[in-house]
Amino acid sequence: MEEIHIKSSSHDYIVTMGEGIRSTLKAFLKKEYSSIFIVTDDTVGKLYLKDVLGGLEEEKNVFYTEVHAGEQSKDFETFHRLHTTALENGLDRNSLVVALGGGVVGDLAGFVAATFMRGIDYVQVPTTILAHDSSVGGKVAINHAFGKNLIGSFYPPVAVIYDTETLATLPGKEIRSGYAELIKEALITDEASVTSVLDADLNKLSSNQLRMHIKAGIATKASIVQQDERESGVRKFLNLGHTLGHAIESNYGYGKLTHGEAVAIGTLFALHVSEDIFNNELPFNDVYNWLQANRYPLDSSILVETDALINKMKADKKTVDTNIQMVLLQNIGKPINRTISDEELKNYLLSFSKRLVNS
Amino acid sequence: MEEIHIKSSSHDYIVTMGEGIRSTLKAFLKKEYSSIFIVTDDTVGKLYLKDVLGGLEEEKNVFYTEVHAGEQSKDFETFHRLHTTALENGLDRNSLVVALGGGVVGDLAGFVAATFMRGIDYVQVPTTILAHDSSVGGKVAINHAFGKNLIGSFYPPVAVIYDTETLATLPGKEIRSGYAELIKEALITDEASVTSVLDADLNKLSSNQLRMHIKAGIATKASIVQQDERESGVRKFLNLGHTLGHAIESNYGYGKLTHGEAVAIGTLFALHVSEDIFNNELPFNDVYNWLQANRYPLDSSILVETDALINKMKADKKTVDTNIQMVLLQNIGKPINRTISDEELKNYLLSFSKRLVNS
Repeated sequence: MEEIHIKSSSHDYIVTMGEGIRSTLKAFLKKEYSSIFIVTDDTVGKLYLKDVLGGLEEEKNVFYTEVHAGEQSKDFETFHRLHTTALENGLDRNSLVVALGGGVVGDLAGFVAATFMRGIDYVQVPTTILAHDSSVGGKVAINHAFGKNLIGSFYPPVAVIYDTETLATLPGKEIRSGYAELIKEALITDEASVTSVLDADLNKLSSNQLRMHIKAGIATKASIVQQDERESGVRKFLNLGHTLGHAIESNYGYGKLTHGEAVAIGTLFALHVSEDIFNNELPFNDVYNWLQANRYPLDSSILVETDALINKMKADKKTVDTNIQMVLLQNIGKPINRTISDEELKNYLLSFSKRLVNS
Repeated sequence: MEEIHIKSSSHDYIVTMGEGIRSTLKAFLKKEYSSIFIVTDDTVGKLYLKDVLGGLEEEKNVFYTEVHAGEQSKDFETFHRLHTTALENGLDRNSLVVALGGGVVGDLAGFVAATFMRGIDYVQVPTTILAHDSSVGGKVAINHAFGKNLIGSFYPPVAVIYDTETLATLPGKEIRSGYAELIKEALITDEASVTSVLDADLNKLSSNQLRMHIKAGIATKASIVQQDERESGVRKFLNLGHTLGHAIESNYGYGKLTHGEAVAIGTLFALHVSEDIFNNELPFNDVYNWLQANRYPLDSSILVETDALINKMKADKKTVDTNIQMVLLQNIGKPINRTISDEELKNYLLSFSKRLVNS
């Protein structure tokens, strides 16, 4: 087992990584809870709910609920329903929420915990690579029809229990999705991290390699959120690739591309814009080739609706004073925030689109 | 103008009390905001919205919305609608929410601010006596069909701008409602505070008297929330009178009795139970006589549905491990938390009810 310690403004917590630890959840809880409410989805539930319940056999009030797998569960109705279920099960202020699943379940269950009776404890039990990112740092939210994560809180978990055994069953699409965030984190860290990730063949990933990359990703994320929990400064750098990424997801329809697949295109776009603005040498081609080799969808048709994409970016919550802000790279490990005009953005989208087709 | 400084875990803020300060809001804002979104209700809006807008004339993006006056606006639908309106008006992370009104507007608009893009600044502009309590300390929430304030956050405002001029137009019912919380605060403070409040004739209240009582109430509240923002300890004492109070409100139907009127009965009940348990001398009769003289509804028929009231109390979020907890007084200024069994509670409700009828 490996531990990463995280400081938050309200409390410290530990990310524990290990094989099979989903079955021994109780060992990671630091206090007694009056009841435990597990939130999972209908895919993860089938695979791992029984194991998690098994590890909580001696607890008296353990309840669970499943939501539909997928982004559409991060909606108002599901949020309301989970509150109702929690109340029906008699949860009180000394209860615990367990978020068993990927980012959707983590964000949703975390936001329920953040707002149930003004906030109760919750633990993240991530079951995807992508969720290494969302389970750490306390960002929880649901979506609004106008955009992703528009309603939420900063509310850190009391523990993250990361069972790497659950990653062995992930489909290729999910591995790609998770690795997009790992590349992003590597790009804002240092060259060695980038090289290490780009060395990986996602079809032949060893469990050691995977654990090393996830641990590095969490370490980068942890060091940033400890400096800036509420995203008033450096935490914004974690949005590298997300301005366009979110717009693509939203415009394309959630579920058609995974979050990470959209972020991969967004990250490549950020490299493209950075090269132009800072006239620097960034690994655009290396990243592009690696994404292609690992079968990320990079079809330029995704970018055809330029105006729609720009409008989506403007509706994004990272927008300040209605100008679009993007995270760019002055160099690997040197992210910076930059305001981009609609006009510039449109031109960059066009030139980026051509580069995708021609390279 | 008078100022009370409050420390919260995330930031410090100032409660400013003064005559007519609703018209000079801009003077109390410590930074520039990209847009300002005023939330008020259709009663307060008619009276004071124009004045508030007048004081923000030089700001570029000022929007407002009105909700129906009354507790029913603290629901999911209104919460969702306010988020939608905020997004439609282009609010971003650097925007400000202004809660202009009583406790309902403060709780609702505060919770919208707490969750809009994971939290933006808001100011409380209370227009009732009762809101001296809810506008300070950062408790924000909406109701669930199962009970009041079950969904919310701890999220302090960046300023409280308390225009005492707005209190001059309050109807008697609202003055009574506010004074119930002032008595409660006096009871957990000291004898002098209790005497001062019980000396007041609510029909002939001078503005000096009112200001003095509100200031004392806020000072008590501030000193408590600074010790215990998230209500894990002493902040619970502020719930004196609220266990039964909330149950009465909920059982009787919100709006038939005001919050304060229900809390007044709850506070009297807490005095009744305290006397029995601690065998002490509390001013039950003085408080009872004062409530009668000031025409608080104290009809014992309010307490007839004992089982329903007990069930409502159990559903209340202050319940821990499904036992009912009540704040009692070992003495004036010496509140304590106590678990009460259903059986005891039932007996106390019966003996209290008789005392109401017979005294």
